[in-house]
Amino acid sequence: MEFTVAQLAFMLEGTVEGDGEQKINMLAKIQEAKPHQISFLSNPKYEPHIYTTEATAIIVSKDFKPREKLNTTLIRVEDPYLAFSAILDEYHKYLSFQKVGVEEPCFIGNNSEVGEEVYRGAFSYIGSNVKIGSNVKIYPHAYIGDNCTIGNNTILHSGVKLYANTIVGSNCVFHAGLVIGSDGFGFAPQADGTYKTIPQLGNVVIGDDVHIGGNTVVDCAALPTDSTFIGKGTKLDNLIQVAHNVKIGKNTVIAAQTAIAGSAEIGDNCVFGGQVAISGHLKVPNKTSIGGQSGLGKNLKKEGMQMFGSPAFEIKDYYRSYAVFKNLPDLNIRLKQLEEKVLNLPTN
Amino acid sequence: MEFTVAQLAFMLEGTVEGDGEQKINMLAKIQEAKPHQISFLSNPKYEPHIYTTEATAIIVSKDFKPREKLNTTLIRVEDPYLAFSAILDEYHKYLSFQKVGVEEPCFIGNNSEVGEEVYRGAFSYIGSNVKIGSNVKIYPHAYIGDNCTIGNNTILHSGVKLYANTIVGSNCVFHAGLVIGSDGFGFAPQADGTYKTIPQLGNVVIGDDVHIGGNTVVDCAALPTDSTFIGKGTKLDNLIQVAHNVKIGKNTVIAAQTAIAGSAEIGDNCVFGGQVAISGHLKVPNKTSIGGQSGLGKNLKKEGMQMFGSPAFEIKDYYRSYAVFKNLPDLNIRLKQLEEKVLNLPTN
Amino acid sequence: MEFTVAQLAFMLEGTVEGDGEQKINMLAKIQEAKPHQISFLSNPKYEPHIYTTEATAIIVSKDFKPREKLNTTLIRVEDPYLAFSAILDEYHKYLSFQKVGVEEPCFIGNNSEVGEEVYRGAFSYIGSNVKIGSNVKIYPHAYIGDNCTIGNNTILHSGVKLYANTIVGSNCVFHAGLVIGSDGFGFAPQADGTYKTIPQLGNVVIGDDVHIGGNTVVDCAALPTDSTFIGKGTKLDNLIQVAHNVKIGKNTVIAAQTAIAGSAEIGDNCVFGGQVAISGHLKVPNKTSIGGQSGLGKNLKKEGMQMFGSPAFEIKDYYRSYAVFKNLPDLNIRLKQLEEKVLNLPTN
Repeated sequence: MEFTVAQLAFMLEGTVEGDGEQKINMLAKIQEAKPHQISFLSNPKYEPHIYTTEATAIIVSKDFKPREKLNTTLIRVEDPYLAFSAILDEYHKYLSFQKVGVEEPCFIGNNSEVGEEVYRGAFSYIGSNVKIGSNVKIYPHAYIGDNCTIGNNTILHSGVKLYANTIVGSNCVFHAGLVIGSDGFGFAPQADGTYKTIPQLGNVVIGDDVHIGGNTVVDCAALPTDSTFIGKGTKLDNLIQVAHNVKIGKNTVIAAQTAIAGSAEIGDNCVFGGQVAISGHLKVPNKTSIGGQSGLGKNLKKEGMQMFGSPAFEIKDYYRSYAVFKNLPDLNIRLKQLEEKVLNLPTN
Repeated sequence: MEFTVAQLAFMLEGTVEGDGEQKINMLAKIQEAKPHQISFLSNPKYEPHIYTTEATAIIVSKDFKPREKLNTTLIRVEDPYLAFSAILDEYHKYLSFQKVGVEEPCFIGNNSEVGEEVYRGAFSYIGSNVKIGSNVKIYPHAYIGDNCTIGNNTILHSGVKLYANTIVGSNCVFHAGLVIGSDGFGFAPQADGTYKTIPQLGNVVIGDDVHIGGNTVVDCAALPTDSTFIGKGTKLDNLIQVAHNVKIGKNTVIAAQTAIAGSAEIGDNCVFGGQVAISGHLKVPNKTSIGGQSGLGKNLKKEGMQMFGSPAFEIKDYYRSYAVFKNLPDLNIRLKQLEEKVLNLPTN
Repeated sequence: MEFTVAQLAFMLEGTVEGDGEQKINMLAKIQEAKPHQISFLSNPKYEPHIYTTEATAIIVSKDFKPREKLNTTLIRVEDPYLAFSAILDEYHKYLSFQKVGVEEPCFIGNNSEVGEEVYRGAFSYIGSNVKIGSNVKIYPHAYIGDNCTIGNNTILHSGVKLYANTIVGSNCVFHAGLVIGSDGFGFAPQADGTYKTIPQLGNVVIGDDVHIGGNTVVDCAALPTDSTFIGKGTKLDNLIQVAHNVKIGKNTVIAAQTAIAGSAEIGDNCVFGGQVAISGHLKVPNKTSIGGQSGLGKNLKKEGMQMFGSPAFEIKDYYRSYAVFKNLPDLNIRLKQLEEKVLNLPTN
């Protein structure tokens, strides 16, 4: 990335004060920025840094009045924080989609179609009968099994593995080592103590705008016409377990190392902390919030509940119990003292 | 997969009522089945669907008497559920073993032997002095280090990594991203606060019929003649941690994200929930059952115990304590009221 | 590895009693050793094994006086345990660094530099503008993104993934499936219930002598000039989550499946058990110890504290509360009995 200050100001609908021809190639915090970097000043607390910064340019408010001499060029805009975020977004988009073309060797099976502006990294694998949209980025060592479908603008980082028949929407981001479509954990106990494998023949369907973190695992559904499902706009962090036949709704956010057991149904707009566990076959209503390390073991009665603990109950009740738990040794002593006192009382 | 109804009926020792020449290419639930799919009717609750199903064929009991007109062909058998399961099993086996041959490029080192009907996917890696049985399926990006041995019919999905010297039995299924044989976590604290690496030189030995889920990690043993061991018929889910020198018995089932610390010995026919932790050097007796998110920190006295909590104790005792825990704020108030009452009593 | 007994004795500054020309190719426990293997006798409890061992040579103390006839050659040294450890260390180093050269096909981008004695396994990927030191071992399917730097003697096992711009020190060991530099989990809730991606543009910087286990994930920092940081000598086990902007100090040891949330700062010489969770933005002082499955949710006041529970407090207090927790049903009954007794008392 390299822009002039004037180009950035044009993009941000701002005005330049200083040399607009200087080059910018990076964004930084105001207190750490170096030459050829751009930063912003929004919170007045950081104003002292603008007089000492090495940044080539600083985005400031239209109304900003410097109280000392400045050594940096200014871009004046309506809202400096939003303007800086807009450059971050553009830079991020630029980085995410800059790779195009085919690095050799890579593999593609029969009857597979690939859209325009696609990146196929070295050692990436595309099976047979696969449909890949435009602007999809397939990093090295990614694996796309037979019959998969992937929408436009989706990014598969290095080592992502999609088992056969997986369907992925557009604008998804999948991080390195993610596994989608592995067999559900289904084994039937036999009379002799061994286990018989229950065939796992379904697939995984993932909506648009879904982000999934590194080394997460999403199992396929059991029956061949069923799907494990992750809804549009949902975000899963790293190292999460999603078991077979799970359905996750839209715009639900789940932090790292959480496990969702088989056939659970998670609603829309839920927020789960890290290391949460959801028992199998539960239905979790929309807007449910669950604190980190909690274990949900029963169905909830309404939307929007906040749960905590293992097993979890309502967070405000949990913390009231937990406060007493921390004082249990004291409570135990008080009870003993009372017992002794009562023992020594005159009785009827 | 494509069969005629008559071929499936022959396989199931059933009789056809309708057109036996129709083609079947998929299995489905009776309420969702489409043309060229087969389903079954076992539970009478689902009987209404048989009169409206689009399925080409339905497996029914010998005694089934339709109460309305049918638009589907029937296969009559002794037990429709078992018959349908048998087709699922066959279909699963067919899918699992259909890949055969070598996709280029792939890598194989010196002195390595590969059996018949093996699949070696593109970008799969086989080191030197490796012995691979017949009908083994090695998906793309699988890595098999030097001196490994793999029995017949074992499936290594994409990106499975076996470090050097790993020994794997027959009929195993290893899911994508599984790591076997990484260094145990052994570091000796030094006087200056740093840690010295304790060499991890052993290997991992895995019995027949073992299934292991995606992105699970199994560390090697420490001493060069020792092994981390997983017994015949044991099933491990996704994202599990098995530390160095662990021994797991036969037919033990462990759910996702469980961690077994170093040198622990797990018996046969145990069942652990998800996110369980087992402390190092414990011996867990046969048939022990441990609930999800529990942490076992001490040895158990006998087989077949059911444990829960972190730290875990017997599940029935845990739930009795937990019931009081939920009422601790109330208990605390009752104790205070009693204290006040007793304070106001006449004393001796 | 193959040495004569005399060569090993020379290396250990010991003296040979017996045939120094015999070949040794493996190390083993005294009770399990086979011909051409070497073991040691340090603990007198194991002395009986020396009279029956099949080992070709045993390392013993200078003062050892056999009470029976020996069938094995002796190497006499000052401290047999240390001597055996030294051979283990040498053997480990030999195994770790024996691979050298380039296996084809492998990939290297433009402007990338590779030092001497490097191993580049088949299907390994090195992007553009990468700097790799001497004696670095890059196993098959490892991925090194653009602009990465890796110090001397660092080992990347099969399938390690380094995103672009990652900086790694010398003498590191990274195990299979490790992901470094994936996007931090940053999403801003919007008024319509959807989430907007907060660009994650920083990198990860890892010091010298850092070991990281299999399938662990370390996210990059958010701002382009920020780094997630792991200090010199720190050891992370398998399947750990390190979120964006986390800083981990020197010589800190963290067991498997632990999660450290965003922007947390972990001090030097900490020890965390498995499945621990650290909340975002916390500062954990040096020498903090946290027991397995604990969840730290608040800042600590001083160094060296020992914490336990979820949420965690001081371990000795936790166990005192936990002891009462196990007796809560009994405590509840005692309280009820007391209430009845007091009810029946004469009042003022």
